[in-house]
Amino acid sequence: MPVNPNAEIEITAYRWVPEFAQGVVRDLRARWALEEAGLDYRERLIDVQKKPDDYVKEQPFEQVPALRDGDLQMFESGAIVQYIGEKSGDLLPTDPKGRYRAIQWVFAALNSVEPAIMNLVLVDVFFAGEEWAKLRREGAADFARLKLKRISDWLGDKTWLEGHRFTIGDLVMVTVLRNLRHTDMVAEFPALEAYQARAEARPAFQRALQDQLAAFREHQPQPEGEAA
Amino acid sequence: MPVNPNAEIEITAYRWVPEFAQGVVRDLRARWALEEAGLDYRERLIDVQKKPDDYVKEQPFEQVPALRDGDLQMFESGAIVQYIGEKSGDLLPTDPKGRYRAIQWVFAALNSVEPAIMNLVLVDVFFAGEEWAKLRREGAADFARLKLKRISDWLGDKTWLEGHRFTIGDLVMVTVLRNLRHTDMVAEFPALEAYQARAEARPAFQRALQDQLAAFREHQPQPEGEAA
Repeated sequence: MPVNPNAEIEITAYRWVPEFAQGVVRDLRARWALEEAGLDYRERLIDVQKKPDDYVKEQPFEQVPALRDGDLQMFESGAIVQYIGEKSGDLLPTDPKGRYRAIQWVFAALNSVEPAIMNLVLVDVFFAGEEWAKLRREGAADFARLKLKRISDWLGDKTWLEGHRFTIGDLVMVTVLRNLRHTDMVAEFPALEAYQARAEARPAFQRALQDQLAAFREHQPQPEGEAA
Repeated sequence: MPVNPNAEIEITAYRWVPEFAQGVVRDLRARWALEEAGLDYRERLIDVQKKPDDYVKEQPFEQVPALRDGDLQMFESGAIVQYIGEKSGDLLPTDPKGRYRAIQWVFAALNSVEPAIMNLVLVDVFFAGEEWAKLRREGAADFARLKLKRISDWLGDKTWLEGHRFTIGDLVMVTVLRNLRHTDMVAEFPALEAYQARAEARPAFQRALQDQLAAFREHQPQPEGEAA
């Protein structure tokens, strides 16, 4: 049961976010990696609208997740999953070749794929209805689709990006793909759809997701004037 | 003299690119890290318009750089600079805390900062003149500026992101900032402007830049009909 108030590792996440963001906030990556690794962690839940005064000294962009473990403080979900992978050994091969291939896929997910996908999310969610977003939509969708095709072609009939072993590269790639859940785009690529489903069926993913959502349920804002 | 046709390490780069991209193509990161580390490398120059047929098997997105070293093949500039940092020890502290703090900044540069900056480049360069780009410009600039402010505030009067030691985190962050060279935005933040200038003054950076530009000069397309 990785969420443990007495754990040494601490993950900072949000207390609550609006529904469109539930299940995709990036602490999910850290939670998932820790579940896969069987490492306990305690949650530090902060308010998305009102961050702690000194949080910027820990996370210069005031985003989540951040990690503390002993005297190490760090941020960036990509770096955090690498830390967890190296700490546990389960998610990151120890032979140099396998190790760098896995790390390379973390960067590919976050730098070659996610920006294209988040640009479609900007258009469809954050700026929906704006004139520029309407004009931009088709181009942004085409570019995101091209990235999906590249990963799908790479995967072919492989189970995971580097074959039979699930690594931090797969973990981060799948969390990136999840940002397209408001579309049917991943389903246009059957190999990719099956890959995402395979990853999300992992018990560690399911536990991580439920723990993120549990925090949001517990801290759901009450509509004003509806006090019992 | 790191560029050495007999070197074991191979970096794939472009033979030539249009002027707006010269000096910012991402093999610059690999070249710079190799220069800092004093590691020789050979260049494999490919055509940006016509990639080798099997290049997609090496680099699923058909971009540069890619690296080969012995039986290791890898892509993604962020992962490549980490590889070089670990191989040499010069650019990446070996104590766990210092090491993860440096790696975190590589991810921050590529995932928290670069997407905002590249969205401004899309608007100003790749889609300049399009209606959506005109409507989007102010918002994209404001978001990029917010990211610059965050890094500038973090830097304060530090020499490098983590204090006195230059790491792969600084190396990648500065190459990200270079994408704003068509604007005056970095200069709006004096600490950031000084930081970028300090990094670009490093002899290793200057050699890396000259080697990228030398390839472009050598392979400059000749205007048709101007054969001597």
